[in-house]
Amino acid sequence: MRTTQYMLSTLKEKPSSADTISHQLMLRAGMIRQLASGLYTWLPTGLRVVQKITRLVREEMQRIGFLEVSMPIIQPASLWQESGRWEQYGSELLKLVDRNGRSFVVGPTHEEVITDLIRNEVTSYKQLPIKLFQIHTKFRDEIRPRFGVIRSREFLMKDGYSFHETQESLQETYAVMYSAYRNILKKMDLNFCIVEADTGSIGGCISHEFQVLAESGDNDIAYSTESTYAANLEIAEALPPSNARQLGSQIKTQFLTQNVTTTQDLVEKFHVPINKIVQTLVVKANTDIADGLVALLVRGDHVLNKIKAERIDIIASPLCFATDQEIRRYCQAGIKSLGPIGLNMPIIADRSVAAMSDFIVGANIDGQYFTGINWERDLPLPRIEDIRNVVEGDMSSDGKGVLLIKRGIEVGHIFQLGTKYSNAMKAIVQSVDGCSKTISMGCYGLGISRLIAAAIEQNHDEHGILWSPVLAPFQVAILPINIQQSFRVRCTAEDLYSQLLAQGIDVILDDRIERPGIMFSDMELIGIPHILVISERNLNNKEIEYKSRVLNQKRMFKISEMILYLKSVLHDAMLHPN
Amino acid sequence: MRTTQYMLSTLKEKPSSADTISHQLMLRAGMIRQLASGLYTWLPTGLRVVQKITRLVREEMQRIGFLEVSMPIIQPASLWQESGRWEQYGSELLKLVDRNGRSFVVGPTHEEVITDLIRNEVTSYKQLPIKLFQIHTKFRDEIRPRFGVIRSREFLMKDGYSFHETQESLQETYAVMYSAYRNILKKMDLNFCIVEADTGSIGGCISHEFQVLAESGDNDIAYSTESTYAANLEIAEALPPSNARQLGSQIKTQFLTQNVTTTQDLVEKFHVPINKIVQTLVVKANTDIADGLVALLVRGDHVLNKIKAERIDIIASPLCFATDQEIRRYCQAGIKSLGPIGLNMPIIADRSVAAMSDFIVGANIDGQYFTGINWERDLPLPRIEDIRNVVEGDMSSDGKGVLLIKRGIEVGHIFQLGTKYSNAMKAIVQSVDGCSKTISMGCYGLGISRLIAAAIEQNHDEHGILWSPVLAPFQVAILPINIQQSFRVRCTAEDLYSQLLAQGIDVILDDRIERPGIMFSDMELIGIPHILVISERNLNNKEIEYKSRVLNQKRMFKISEMILYLKSVLHDAMLHPN
Repeated sequence: MRTTQYMLSTLKEKPSSADTISHQLMLRAGMIRQLASGLYTWLPTGLRVVQKITRLVREEMQRIGFLEVSMPIIQPASLWQESGRWEQYGSELLKLVDRNGRSFVVGPTHEEVITDLIRNEVTSYKQLPIKLFQIHTKFRDEIRPRFGVIRSREFLMKDGYSFHETQESLQETYAVMYSAYRNILKKMDLNFCIVEADTGSIGGCISHEFQVLAESGDNDIAYSTESTYAANLEIAEALPPSNARQLGSQIKTQFLTQNVTTTQDLVEKFHVPINKIVQTLVVKANTDIADGLVALLVRGDHVLNKIKAERIDIIASPLCFATDQEIRRYCQAGIKSLGPIGLNMPIIADRSVAAMSDFIVGANIDGQYFTGINWERDLPLPRIEDIRNVVEGDMSSDGKGVLLIKRGIEVGHIFQLGTKYSNAMKAIVQSVDGCSKTISMGCYGLGISRLIAAAIEQNHDEHGILWSPVLAPFQVAILPINIQQSFRVRCTAEDLYSQLLAQGIDVILDDRIERPGIMFSDMELIGIPHILVISERNLNNKEIEYKSRVLNQKRMFKISEMILYLKSVLHDAMLHPN
Repeated sequence: MRTTQYMLSTLKEKPSSADTISHQLMLRAGMIRQLASGLYTWLPTGLRVVQKITRLVREEMQRIGFLEVSMPIIQPASLWQESGRWEQYGSELLKLVDRNGRSFVVGPTHEEVITDLIRNEVTSYKQLPIKLFQIHTKFRDEIRPRFGVIRSREFLMKDGYSFHETQESLQETYAVMYSAYRNILKKMDLNFCIVEADTGSIGGCISHEFQVLAESGDNDIAYSTESTYAANLEIAEALPPSNARQLGSQIKTQFLTQNVTTTQDLVEKFHVPINKIVQTLVVKANTDIADGLVALLVRGDHVLNKIKAERIDIIASPLCFATDQEIRRYCQAGIKSLGPIGLNMPIIADRSVAAMSDFIVGANIDGQYFTGINWERDLPLPRIEDIRNVVEGDMSSDGKGVLLIKRGIEVGHIFQLGTKYSNAMKAIVQSVDGCSKTISMGCYGLGISRLIAAAIEQNHDEHGILWSPVLAPFQVAILPINIQQSFRVRCTAEDLYSQLLAQGIDVILDDRIERPGIMFSDMELIGIPHILVISERNLNNKEIEYKSRVLNQKRMFKISEMILYLKSVLHDAMLHPN
């Protein structure tokens, strides 16, 4: 490619609208442009990266025996009603009505469509397992699209689905997919973490997320200092404290406060240690099981984990906090002064709370608290559950090491769905003994557009993007200096360009009449891994100046050696030529 | 690929729902499945063909200097309001509202989005021309989706757009694109025709359609027996008759009929030649120019051309016929007995009508007609226009030869849009003299999914599809006979399979335990061009039975010669390996 026949669209200024470094750099490098909130056009440079990832992912899927299909983006509402997700999915599901008044959705995911396909095509266990994938556009009507293509509304995704006669067969394919995702992220030279995760609106019981590590990530990942254990903070288990509960030494005392509105106020104004305070949080009960409200007890320095709480049978899901007014129907106090003593509703204590002694709770009278409270002396031990976020220093749930926390961007998520969809949609086969059997199912998502942004969040410097060779829009840039004044520079550049193209190397020749500084900063911004500068001065020594973008090192090469060097360093990336 | 690890999904029975041969064969060959009316899932065999066409089209677009981009499928309504097409496009435009109440469309085409991109990116003539394309999903809410993927609602399209400072530059690119489309269709071995066409809802003044010839096509194409002239029947010009109008010999006579309701009745009951009858058709006037109705005169054996009529200044567009009731406000007769004599509304005669003498017209009294009518004796000559469809035998409008008519499937359409969108959306550049100049624009569509169906309509036999080598889902099929009983057959098949794969040949090995007849009919149905049968009997002579699907010829090959032969015949198709 020649820059004069290309659409570089680089921007000098930092765009004011961009909220993360990857978003800024993708705009500045001419990779994307925003059409509307959460909707982006991929410009030529961006699309080249999309296509390189797509090719890499497709090759890996084919290698593990997945067959590619392509399903409609617009899906009939009837299938979503059948699976139950028409109601459950929430307002991210973009619904529409066609000219004949029939309801459809713009597909955020394709479990329903592919289950419908399989129930029509498959009748016997002999046809299983079936493993399919597509690489296609998805739409989720995000309430707040942000971070560029990390949380956009329309995005490109690889979604895979597998169908099995048995749970064992599903687990086998799940393990193969787990390895395949690891291979893909390794080929892209990404620093990532595989974590146990919540299954959310997709469903099933076992799932893993693939998180690209980056400070700007919006996921917290808890991982062990001494084992391979890692989990999304949403589900990372907080073990009960290893020390037995200490015997209480204080007596129960009631005291009155003024202007105490937070736990932090209590700590500051009364100099009590925060880990001696018990917070009482009141949520709505699951109306299928219980009426009214449920109180949750969490230590003052801990944070309630919503997902863990939602999984408790008597609690409403999604989690819903009671208002001050609703609480006052059950006791004399508002939200600020609640406590478990004499509270007339089911109480659930976090494992850490159950291990406390001589602690402080609200007295259920506005502005009043009790200190020196102890279990089984002042009140009975309630039901105990794990309902808090882990914190750094907690024991790892596998008993090996302690937990640390880092931030990540979720780029992949794989699920053992089991029979969630096949049951609802009656996808059954005849098994070997002639009985009907519900098909087991797995699904496997990988965000193609999000992967690009994640790679940039993790790999950039003050000049621009640092691409790994397999992802770079171009592998090599040739910058001839003063092309219009030196015939020798022009000829050498053109000759090198032709030779590299002939070798299957993805090269861009900057044949603009521009100042060297501008050419150089454009190529650094776009992140071309190998930059070759051809100038009259160096040609006197038959040399080319070479710069490695990632290593930030310059080196001189004889012209004849330059091509050999590039072929050797690009060997891996050339296995996937453009 | 091995059939045991593949999803053949072939069907023995002709699907009752399929209305054309290509639709039947695509279902039977396991290429597509219907999800809902006009929505299809591409199964692995179908998607392989899609990807081969996509690659071929992409290569050709890149060769002529077009850069690939990817634009959102969901587009903001505001851009369509700006271009005026929000109202004009009609009910094929699928509109929707997001969770924030903002209006969007599911994009049927991308002129608005790309014009918005260009007006933001381009400020100077120095940046022009810009030539962009994408290969992406489109949606048109067809009132009656039919013929499988030929007229589906969701479909895959290559859409290209070019932007120019001058009309000359636009014409240059238009000519290059014209040749590129011809190249693409030639590489696919299709029999096609390039025709002048109506610009419809896309706009502009000059356009050409690329029509794949097939009896089942829904387009009529008029072409010259002696020149390269060809045009869609919608716009093919009907020249005035070459002979001068004959002098009338009959006298004007009024006669009364009974039970005459059609021109055909007049011919049958009164034995008048049909080409002596003048039909009087009444349509609504363009309210910007005139009120009321307009009468159109067309010869009895001719058909009114709606698109030609709509282009006449005083006629409403879209064309709207007057009802019997509306007509009776202007004269004493209903639709059946109208004629130009004494009719109180503007009259437009077709060129052929103006050349008639001694003709028959309605008398504007129910059931009454005049015979022996002549221009300028019985009534003045009205305004004359070309308002009919051409018929076979008409002179070609370039004066060379006569016209014949054949049927085609429109697979491509290219347009010189001029400034239609750039004017409405203010896409301007600063020209060399410092003045503002509106950008000229071209757009170029090629229906990828429709091309596949068109290729099948044109190339099939009673056993299934006949693919050209560049499109075939697999180039070669290996059918080992009695694989479970002959170790020698199995080994030979496996060995040949590995060798062909190593040569980059797209091969499928049918390793099912199936009867030879079933294996053979599956491969013929899917349309694999080269079929190799390996049997114990032939291996005694170290031979393989080879069948060419297209030529329907069998031939024996020595094993060692088989690979050489395939490499030689697949040479062209291997330039685009999978």
